[in-house]
Amino acid sequence: MNFKIKKKLNNELGRVGVLNTPHGEIKTPAFVTVGTKATIKAVTPEQVKNIEAQVVLANTYHLYLQPNDEIIKEAGGLHKFMNWNGPMMTDSGGFQVFSLGTAFGDSVTKIASKTDEKLLSNPTTKSCCLVKIDDDGVDFRSCIDGSKHRFTPEKSINIQHNIGADIIFAFDECTSPQANYEYQKEAMERTHRWAERSLAEHKKLGVSESTGKQQSLFGIVQGGRFEDLRKKSAEVISKMDFDGFGIGGSFDKEDMGKAVAWVNEVLPEEKPRHLLGIGEPEDIFEGVQNGIDLFDCVAPTRMGRNGTLHTQNGKINILNAKFQNDFSKIDEGCECYTCQNYTKAYLSHLFRAKEMLAGTLASIHNLYFIVDLVEKIRQSILDDNFFEFKKEFLKAYYRK
Amino acid sequence: MNFKIKKKLNNELGRVGVLNTPHGEIKTPAFVTVGTKATIKAVTPEQVKNIEAQVVLANTYHLYLQPNDEIIKEAGGLHKFMNWNGPMMTDSGGFQVFSLGTAFGDSVTKIASKTDEKLLSNPTTKSCCLVKIDDDGVDFRSCIDGSKHRFTPEKSINIQHNIGADIIFAFDECTSPQANYEYQKEAMERTHRWAERSLAEHKKLGVSESTGKQQSLFGIVQGGRFEDLRKKSAEVISKMDFDGFGIGGSFDKEDMGKAVAWVNEVLPEEKPRHLLGIGEPEDIFEGVQNGIDLFDCVAPTRMGRNGTLHTQNGKINILNAKFQNDFSKIDEGCECYTCQNYTKAYLSHLFRAKEMLAGTLASIHNLYFIVDLVEKIRQSILDDNFFEFKKEFLKAYYRK
Repeated sequence: MNFKIKKKLNNELGRVGVLNTPHGEIKTPAFVTVGTKATIKAVTPEQVKNIEAQVVLANTYHLYLQPNDEIIKEAGGLHKFMNWNGPMMTDSGGFQVFSLGTAFGDSVTKIASKTDEKLLSNPTTKSCCLVKIDDDGVDFRSCIDGSKHRFTPEKSINIQHNIGADIIFAFDECTSPQANYEYQKEAMERTHRWAERSLAEHKKLGVSESTGKQQSLFGIVQGGRFEDLRKKSAEVISKMDFDGFGIGGSFDKEDMGKAVAWVNEVLPEEKPRHLLGIGEPEDIFEGVQNGIDLFDCVAPTRMGRNGTLHTQNGKINILNAKFQNDFSKIDEGCECYTCQNYTKAYLSHLFRAKEMLAGTLASIHNLYFIVDLVEKIRQSILDDNFFEFKKEFLKAYYRK
Repeated sequence: MNFKIKKKLNNELGRVGVLNTPHGEIKTPAFVTVGTKATIKAVTPEQVKNIEAQVVLANTYHLYLQPNDEIIKEAGGLHKFMNWNGPMMTDSGGFQVFSLGTAFGDSVTKIASKTDEKLLSNPTTKSCCLVKIDDDGVDFRSCIDGSKHRFTPEKSINIQHNIGADIIFAFDECTSPQANYEYQKEAMERTHRWAERSLAEHKKLGVSESTGKQQSLFGIVQGGRFEDLRKKSAEVISKMDFDGFGIGGSFDKEDMGKAVAWVNEVLPEEKPRHLLGIGEPEDIFEGVQNGIDLFDCVAPTRMGRNGTLHTQNGKINILNAKFQNDFSKIDEGCECYTCQNYTKAYLSHLFRAKEMLAGTLASIHNLYFIVDLVEKIRQSILDDNFFEFKKEFLKAYYRK
């Protein structure tokens, strides 16, 4: 993997770059489309390409449980299995192990708790995903069938080698933004030890057996909302031989820009940085301005399937009665497949009739909107008008 | 509309033709893809085009209830509304009015019963689609919200003019194959009177106001399993000024070939004939051999969404455990998008994970299989080897 910075944002951490992977280049900053279970929900890989999405992120936790990484290995790796031959990433499964099944419900939803042994062993508790952390790894239950499993850093890296994505992540502990300082510190230190072990396992394994290609490993910076922990984590992780970095999203929404800046001031400039699980337009502007190169988020497709659609003037809910006979495009000026060919009235009909094409057309539109937004942000840096573009966009989108 | 017969099947009723519509030609025999609610379930119009499907049939009953034909008219007609600019048909809504909500459960499911007034007026009965027939029309309840509606031949034709498909159907009464001779006769005679009224309304209305195009009206032959009724119905309907004919499918599976032959021996050779709601491979061979030009059926997409897939060696259920690590194509030799790009193992994963792409890929495959089969049947007539092809195909598919 090779990362080149093409241009920097004046007096800021932001930059424009190009990241080369065994399956092609990624122009950064870039929005990474999420294909959790080896499919971008409701759309074909060709539709994803037509959106000009550059890269897909799949999920280690989900693919391990279903269909299992051994099957993906047998298929010749994830690219071949799911028919996506562009760049691909897998996260480490850390976030899912800690978050799934536990209601948390804030804009950044990452949680870890030392769950009571009794709860975990009681099959009548709604405990499908309850977790138990020790220094070696994590016991958890499958969110599919409640069966017991264990992830360690070594296990996560082995699974990710079987899956064979171009960029993989170290196994980390995801904490709740509400966790106190002491717990955040303890979890962060564990994440650092797990980072070392992830790196060692990755080196030991060499190229992916599934694809025969070299994978890049990104380390993950944690530390919650605390400046000293974030900086400490960035320092420790940046000293390890990672190819790039992920920033774990355990902070409140308002802190995000600040926390990203704390971290990116410490991380080596020449390596790429991925802000995990963030996809709201204003957060993307904040992230880019503060030195983020890659973003991923399920929001565009998830929102889309629920009928919430991005427009340059903010989000709309297509199920609103007024759209039933609105024969205009979702977003005037949008050049996505959906806006080129369909009206709000048609989308409204598909959603009301619960037709599968509703999710497809809405996902295509929302993905296009965000991928295109990040591409426009990139271009605005190249054209020296990032701040004008940011102001204009946010004013129209949030009316502020 | 203009229909030309290119070649006839020796000593049989079967033929190869070309049917011209305001939105392009249909090479017959042809399989008509079903887009009940203004969308072919789970696939985009472009995916339908890539399957080389020539024509789409939408449903008057469903579109009247949702989004309503006035909205489709306002959109400029169905072609524009749903982004399909090839030939298009709507059925009359007759079948749905009589069948929806009433469990019938045989291979050809068409039912009519003189439902008790009390049942229809009792809101606590599961009576959403119970119907009440009189000579003027039919009272029925919406299968969406239970609201009361009335269709008459005039109403059906008006809706179909608002929708604006190239080929529309007269409003008919669909009877159960189990109905006795007396009832079949009574219903058939009513269908004949309704055919006259449908035709008169169609002529009165002129071109579709939604599209500005001339629509073709097909009359429907009924008569159940009874030879004299089928022949009588064909005689009566063929004397009316219809552009083509539909054959209502109220017969048992074993009778189908025979009943189709009774009718097509009477119908004028120079006009096209559509066998309504039939899509099983052996029935298609029987139909073509006995003079059918057009078939439509929801089976390919419905079966597909449930994981049942056509192969040249019969149907398979992709949820069968053995396919989880089967890295071969669904059907060797199949050139559909799905078979070109995905394995059984991947389909198996998508179905198990309940991913929306499962339905999309399975529908593409099954539609391609049937559209391609009918195209191969057409070619076999042109090549003078229909009977060899039929024998070979049925032997492999049904192992008989």
